[in-house]
Order: sequence, then C-alpha cells, then structure tokens
Amino acid sequence: MDSHSLKIIPLGGCGEIGMNMTVLCVMDRYYFIDAGALFPDASLLGVDLILPDTKFIDENQIQPDAWLITHGHEDHIGALPYLFKKYPAPIYGTEFTLELIKSKFEEAGIYDAIFNLWNYFDPVYFRNMKVTVFPVNHSIADASGLFFETKIGNILHMGDFRIDYSPPEKSMTHKNVEKVTEGKTVTLMMSDSTNSFQTGTDMSESEISPHMIDFLDKENGIVIIATFASNIWRLQSIFEAAYLTDRKIALLGKSLLKNTEIASRLGLLNFSNNIFIEIQDIYKYPRNEVCILCTGSQGESFSGLHRLAWNNVSDFRIDEKDTVIFSSRIIPGNERTIESLITQFTRIGCKVITSKENKSIHVSGHGYQEDLITCINTAKPISFLPVHGTYRHLKKHREIAISCGVSPDKAFLAENGDVVVVGPDIIGVVDSVSSGRDYVCPGGIFSQSSQIYKDRVALIHGGVAVVSIVFEENTYNIIGEPSVAFKGIPLNPEHLAKKVPLIFNNVYESSIKKRNFNEDILQDDLRIGVRRFIEKRLNFKTNVIIMFQRI
Amino acid sequence: MDSHSLKIIPLGGCGEIGMNMTVLCVMDRYYFIDAGALFPDASLLGVDLILPDTKFIDENQIQPDAWLITHGHEDHIGALPYLFKKYPAPIYGTEFTLELIKSKFEEAGIYDAIFNLWNYFDPVYFRNMKVTVFPVNHSIADASGLFFETKIGNILHMGDFRIDYSPPEKSMTHKNVEKVTEGKTVTLMMSDSTNSFQTGTDMSESEISPHMIDFLDKENGIVIIATFASNIWRLQSIFEAAYLTDRKIALLGKSLLKNTEIASRLGLLNFSNNIFIEIQDIYKYPRNEVCILCTGSQGESFSGLHRLAWNNVSDFRIDEKDTVIFSSRIIPGNERTIESLITQFTRIGCKVITSKENKSIHVSGHGYQEDLITCINTAKPISFLPVHGTYRHLKKHREIAISCGVSPDKAFLAENGDVVVVGPDIIGVVDSVSSGRDYVCPGGIFSQSSQIYKDRVALIHGGVAVVSIVFEENTYNIIGEPSVAFKGIPLNPEHLAKKVPLIFNNVYESSIKKRNFNEDILQDDLRIGVRRFIEKRLNFKTNVIIMFQRI
Repeated sequence: MDSHSLKIIPLGGCGEIGMNMTVLCVMDRYYFIDAGALFPDASLLGVDLILPDTKFIDENQIQPDAWLITHGHEDHIGALPYLFKKYPAPIYGTEFTLELIKSKFEEAGIYDAIFNLWNYFDPVYFRNMKVTVFPVNHSIADASGLFFETKIGNILHMGDFRIDYSPPEKSMTHKNVEKVTEGKTVTLMMSDSTNSFQTGTDMSESEISPHMIDFLDKENGIVIIATFASNIWRLQSIFEAAYLTDRKIALLGKSLLKNTEIASRLGLLNFSNNIFIEIQDIYKYPRNEVCILCTGSQGESFSGLHRLAWNNVSDFRIDEKDTVIFSSRIIPGNERTIESLITQFTRIGCKVITSKENKSIHVSGHGYQEDLITCINTAKPISFLPVHGTYRHLKKHREIAISCGVSPDKAFLAENGDVVVVGPDIIGVVDSVSSGRDYVCPGGIFSQSSQIYKDRVALIHGGVAVVSIVFEENTYNIIGEPSVAFKGIPLNPEHLAKKVPLIFNNVYESSIKKRNFNEDILQDDLRIGVRRFIEKRLNFKTNVIIMFQRI
Repeated sequence: MDSHSLKIIPLGGCGEIGMNMTVLCVMDRYYFIDAGALFPDASLLGVDLILPDTKFIDENQIQPDAWLITHGHEDHIGALPYLFKKYPAPIYGTEFTLELIKSKFEEAGIYDAIFNLWNYFDPVYFRNMKVTVFPVNHSIADASGLFFETKIGNILHMGDFRIDYSPPEKSMTHKNVEKVTEGKTVTLMMSDSTNSFQTGTDMSESEISPHMIDFLDKENGIVIIATFASNIWRLQSIFEAAYLTDRKIALLGKSLLKNTEIASRLGLLNFSNNIFIEIQDIYKYPRNEVCILCTGSQGESFSGLHRLAWNNVSDFRIDEKDTVIFSSRIIPGNERTIESLITQFTRIGCKVITSKENKSIHVSGHGYQEDLITCINTAKPISFLPVHGTYRHLKKHREIAISCGVSPDKAFLAENGDVVVVGPDIIGVVDSVSSGRDYVCPGGIFSQSSQIYKDRVALIHGGVAVVSIVFEENTYNIIGEPSVAFKGIPLNPEHLAKKVPLIFNNVYESSIKKRNFNEDILQDDLRIGVRRFIEKRLNFKTNVIIMFQRI
C-alpha cells in the first residue's frame, strides 16, 4: 500500500451489529481498533462465538503497532483473546476496559500482554500519529472515542456512544467532541449507526433510577431484575433503589459478580456491602425485602434468569407473587429464546415486565438520530464513514450526515473488507480485501466457508453411514464380512451390510476399466454406490465414509 | 375413556402459534379437527417441517371417524398428507379448503381419500353428533367455524377468525355465530388466541385496496408485492389495483399460480386474463406499467422474492427505481432472514416498504381483543377454552373470557396433550397425554426426542471420527494397519492411525480383565479411548465410531 495515505479497513461491524474491528493504516504502520465478537444466533448450531475473519491480515503479514480498544463490551473485546495470540501488540484502553480484558486474558491463560492505561485528553504519541482519547456516554463505564491526528489528516472515531443530558459519566459526548477537535480539521468522522433509524433522543440513563425505586417499593414479592452485567450505571441505580426500599440484593451470574468487584475496586460503583445477601439465604428474608439481580436477559441457557425460570437455583423457588423485570432489550435473533423464558415465568404465574411495554426500565447506549446529528454538527467532518450497523443502518446514517452538510461524494458507505482511503485528496472506497466470519466451535476455529464447518453442517442434514471392507491387496477380493455403522440414518445397518459385497463387486467391475484406475477411485465409486443404495430406500442423500483395509 | 362425556385433546397449537390439531372424542367416537404443520425456525437445521406428535393416537389405537378441516392454511392442513396415511378417514371441508388439500395429496401421491364438501349452515350428521359449519372472516377464502351438537353438550369451535366489518366474505363472523347458536346452549367455546394481546380491532381487508392503488399509481418503477399466496382477498385487491393503474401483473411463485388457478376456477377471484404477463416478458413493457406479485415475504430461500433480490429470475434485473412492498407480517423466528432480504434490496437501491412502518398494506386475519370479546358476548358460552397461541396468548384470552362473564373455574387453560373433559358437569382439564413434535427430515420423520435426531445434532457439534481395525478372531491381534477417517475434525487422521494399535492394546489389557468381557465392551472401551485421545489434543468431545472386523 502506498505510504502517503490513511486507510481504514473495517473487518467487522460494517454490515452487521456486533463483531466490531477496524484496521487503521497510517502510512505503512498498522493499528487495530477493537476486536469484537458476535454471539451466534440460534441458526448457527455448533458455533460458540463468531470472530472477524483475519485472512487479509495473515496474507499481508501485517503486525499491528498497537491494539486500541474503545470500551469493554463483548462486541469490542470478545475476539481479543483469540486475535491477540496471533497479533501480539501493546493494548491501549481506559481503566475499566483494561480490567475486563485482563480478566478475559487470565481465563484464556494469556500472561504476556502489555497494557497501557489511557487517560482522557492525555494524548498518546505513536510513531506517526497522535491519539487523544475522550469520554463518551454509553451503557458501560469508561467508554471512549478516539481522535487520531496525522500529517495526512485527522480521524474522529466515535466509538459506541449516545448523548446523555444528565450523564452518569459527568460529561456529555458532544462537549467532549468539541473539546478534542477544537480548532482542528476532522478529515474523516467514523460514527456508530446502531440506532440510525430511531428518531429523537432517548431519556437519560439516570431517569431509570426512580422507576426502579417505584417497582421495588410497590411490588409485594421478590423482584428479579435481569440486565446486562457491564452496565455499571444500571447496577448502581438498582443498588440504590434496593437500599432506599429496604431490599437486600442477591447477585446471580458470574459476570455480574466479576463486574461488580472490578467496578467497586475502581470506584465506579458505590454501595455498602451489607446490602448484599447470598442467593441461598433468600429464604431467611420476607419476600418483599429481597431483590435478585441477574444476567440472562437474552434467554441464554445457563444464565441466572434461565435457572430461576426452571427452578434450578439451589432450594429457592419463585412463585406467582414475584415479579420479573427485563431491564434490557431484545438483541435480534434471540426473540424465540426470550419468548420461551417469558412463557415459563408466565406459567409459574409471575408478573413479567419488559422494555417493550414499559419504556422506563431500559435505555439504549446508542445515540438516536438527534444525538448523531448533534455530534456531526459539532465535529463538522469533511468526510464521513458510518460504522456499526447493518447495511440499512449505515445507509440511513450516511443520509443523515449528508443532511448535516457532508458532501455526498465524501459520505462513504463501506462494508466489511472495503478499503476506505483518505489522502491529501479524500478518495473513499477504492478496493476491497478478504473478509468474513470465523466460527469458534468445539475443537477449533474454522472459517464459515471451511470444509470442516461445511462437513459438520452436512452431517446434521444427512447423518453418516460408514462401511468398512477388508480385501486382498492385489486381487481386491473381499475378506470376511463388510461391517456397517449408521448415525442419524433410520435403516438397519445389517440391511446394507448384506448388500455391500454385491455393490463392491459391481463398482469394482466398472472402476477397473477406467484408464486411471486406482484405489482412491474405487473408494469414491463405492461411496457413490452406497449413497445411491440408501437414497433409493430413504429418498435422501446421506454422507458416506468408506474404510478400506488391505491384507 | 368413559362414554358419557366430551373430550377435547389439543395435540398442537396450544402453547405455540402453528401446527393446529385437536382430537375431539364424543362418547367413544373420535374426530380429528385440522392437521396443521409448523415451519421450523432457523435453529432447527436439518428439519424441513414440524408435525404434531401422534404417539397418543397410536398407543390408544385410535382411528377417527372423520377429519374436520376448518380452512386451508398450512398450520391447519400442512400435516394432513402425513397423518392421513396413518389415520385414513373421510375429509370434510369447504370448497377452497378441499381444493388445496387435493392439490397437496396429488403431490404426495395420495389417491384414496374421500372428500366431503361442506356447505355453510347445512348440518352434517355423524354417528353421535351434528356439525354445522359457518363462515368466519379470515385471511383465506372459505374459512369456517364449527358448531358441534351432542347429547352431552354443544361445542363452538371458532376456527381462525377475525371480525371484518366490510368483509370480502360478505358476512361477519359474529353474525354467523349468532345464527348458528341461536336458542342453543354453548357448553364450551374454543377460540383463536393469536392476537389476544392486540387491543381494539384492525381495519378491514377491503381498506387495503385503495392503498395498493395509490402505490401502483405513484411509483415510477416496477412495484414488487410480496404476500401470502392463500390470501385470495389480497390477491383480488392487487389485481384490481393493477387493472385500475394500467399495470400488467407477473406472478412469481408456484403456490401463487396454483391458488390463483383454483380460486378463479371456484369463482373466488375475478379478473380478466389479459392483465397477466409472463415474468420473462417484463422487459417488453415500460417499468411503470408492470407489477410483480410474488411469495417469499418470510425470506424463504427459494422463493420468488429471494430470487428477485439476488437477481436469479431469468434475464430480468430490478434496480434502484423499483419498489418492494411486503404486504405481510413477520412470522416470529424469521426476523433475520427477512432483514437480510431487505438489506439486499437496500443494497440494490430499491425502496422497501414493510407493514412495520406502513400499517395500510397488511391486516391480520386474526381477531384483536374487541373481536374476541364480541364473539364471546355473542356465543355466551358456559365454559371457555382458548386455543391457537403461546401460553401467554392463551392466558390473556382466558382473562378476556372471564372479563366477559365466563366463570373463572369454567375458563380453562390447556396446553398440547391436556385432556379437557366436558360432561353433564363441566369439569375442565383432568389429565394429560403424550404430546410433542415430530420432525420431517431428509430420510424420514423423527420425534424431536428420538435417538436419530439427537445423533444428527451431536454430529454438527462434534463431527465424527471413524476407526476401523482388523484383528484375529480369538487372539485380538491387530492385522494390518488400522484405518482412520474424520469428518468435521481438524486433525490429520494419520496422526491418530499411528496411535491406534497402542490405544487398542491398552484398552484390551484392561477390558479383558472385566468379568463380563466381550467384544461389545472392548469396542465401547476403545471408543472412549479414541475419544479421549482426540479430546486431549483438541479439547472437545467428538463422536467416535469403531468398526471391528474379525478374520
């Protein structure tokens, strides 16, 4: 790549919501911004986690100068344990972000990372650029935007953000944008498109608190609140509401315990320890003096909320006097699992409250149109690149930028793998590189287009038939009886076993006549013969494995 | 079962939306009402269709006196080709319903069915009951409700319905309920709960027409309308709108062609044949004089709409001047496939209009709360059973019935498999029988809890390793070299093949010491040994098949 330009190459998050990762190339030096993961939807059976495909990085033998992490949500750090191993480099982030990464790395057994703490508005100098990190309002503590200054031009990367007008973070996103870009040209602005279809602006995170107090006050049974464990502001609201309404809190869920520990150690959460009780001690308290805070708002199978619904939490039973509050939203793809969870609570007889019917129990961490506009008007970018969203979200955000005065030919639209070039002349999307998804599966990480993953999918559709044959090395005479095994095929294996010698001999007779005859050809022809035999009986194509043994 | 009661046993549709089927037992005689299928959501890889589990019918050797079909939607007739084969009996239905079933049976090669045409308000006498069929407003032609009169009590089965106050069916549901139940006691009312959470009532189907005219009139490119092929009223509206706006219509989709043919043959659809053109002739017309009507509003892979989005319809290309209208709703579970379809149209640059943003292009065929209340108030049932809905929908509908004056102890709540008994004393849910789901898969129909289906799911998670060993019959000495094959396992098979003799010998040494030693035990121990070997290297549990050959 030429050395007098900036290149931005999103490898994730452009064309989807989740899995955010961007390669930034400043005159031959590379920086990786975020390393997010995506949780598979229900259709991806056998996939535990999705990572950005890094073929492009491997093929070009790129090693980054640094990992620059905007905040600690899974869609920004979830892939880091996997990618750091392949592309080790110092990791930059704010305090809470780094703590979450450290905890992840510990679990993954990574002990050789260098962490560099980032302080807001203290510029950090890299070889050919200066980066200033600034706070943004978001649904996690210590969320940041980044301002890159280079000889060629300046890039404003907003991270994930909204504008909160009475912010728990104490400062407002657009004021910080103003501060960091003051008197400077914003050559390119990259901005979060998650809510580009939502008009107006959402209420403040701090407005949730009185509603929580209200619920905890008026409900007569146990109140169970499911929320995202990383939303420290939400946890703080709930802790305070419990304190004010004389309820004890039981925390249920590993990540909740972990995040509460980290956040309180960093001074982000304030509470007196005696508001907490252990879940197994709940029975000791009147039910209207207890609140359970848990994870699992997306219906995850092993989460606290799921275990509560199916009464798998120690001896404790919820009943029809209790209330379940989903202080969360539905992440698309989880509709059915959440519905089945709500059904189970309804069956028990609990009251269930979700943010669909009651808007006061959840706010989004991503800016609505008004927030997006305010930030564009503050930064006044020459060019604009919408990120973090499906194609429709990006397109909508691009239109918003144009309506704010960005010139249409400088309002770009890039999907994963597109190469956006910014030089002395702002150019736009000039090229595209390899991109896609890698699947973290039991047994390894495989590209979505890999043979291994395709084989696994073929197995669920067709099951597998195995035929093992022993024959004389040179004559191909079968010795003993062929052996057959099935998995996922509704047929008696003996039925096929009896026919195998006949199929084998027929196949052999025609294979041997081929000019290029060899054992592989015989094996493949037999595979097709066996497949046809089963297809004739069951009217479907199965997977067949032929095992040859020569003696 | 005792002979002086009525029993209602839902085998599908109670606890879910779809797959409607109810067993009605009138003093020892059995009648099956509907035989619906459910389309698998994306999580059910390798499943083509879902049917009600009929173990209960088999175990009790029940044969029905008749199949009573309320209407021709897939969730009421989709399972019939499968279940009719097992439980043959005369099929009763209205004209359009029977035509759709006949066409299904032809495809399935069923030629021995007896069809009995049902005329509205003409009672049909069965051995111990009288059934009167009446028209209801719904999103398909010839939809019916059923009124059963028996010595023990009368049951009103509403079918799928709404109230349309300017109905394309010419009569209104509640007026027909009034007519059929006049002067008679409704002992039990069974009613559709699909929209029990929607307040008010929806607009009339006939109000869609002017909006369609509007779109076809004002849009400058081709207008593509995706809708459900069985909604004859919608098709009629669109045909008329096209005629009035001088657009030709190209039909895309097998079921659209079929339903249009049937409905016009039955006089349900009126149009002049010269409004139609073939899809491959579109290029001959100015783009603003053409409308494409197609199926695939749920994002189905091989549907017309999908092929249009990916430009796989002959030589024809849609472009950014064209408009796509989803005259449909999102069936839960299809959110992601529909989103990806919309994204693709957005990428092409078309305008996309869905019923989410524009309420005037689709109405539901299922009654909102006001409709439900009107029908309950008309029928004045003594007892009530909500059907067709998830548990939450049923519960909500039960509450609505109670608010209409049904006594709470006579407002029942039953899920699939529950036995509702109505006798001289109305009793309610007294028992439950086996129920569940059968999966139509490549190669056969398997219960959701069958080993075959479980094996297939295990294969996508773990792949499969096959080890084939030849040994001497009595000594268990390995002959030749063991052979190994993998599918979905990221390891070189040679790597394992080399180790197999060692693993085999170790396993043999410890197996032989077991008191009950035999070859099956050796085989199973080896399976575990091989599984452990792979687990040590890849940290996951695979499926292992061991093939033994004795010589």
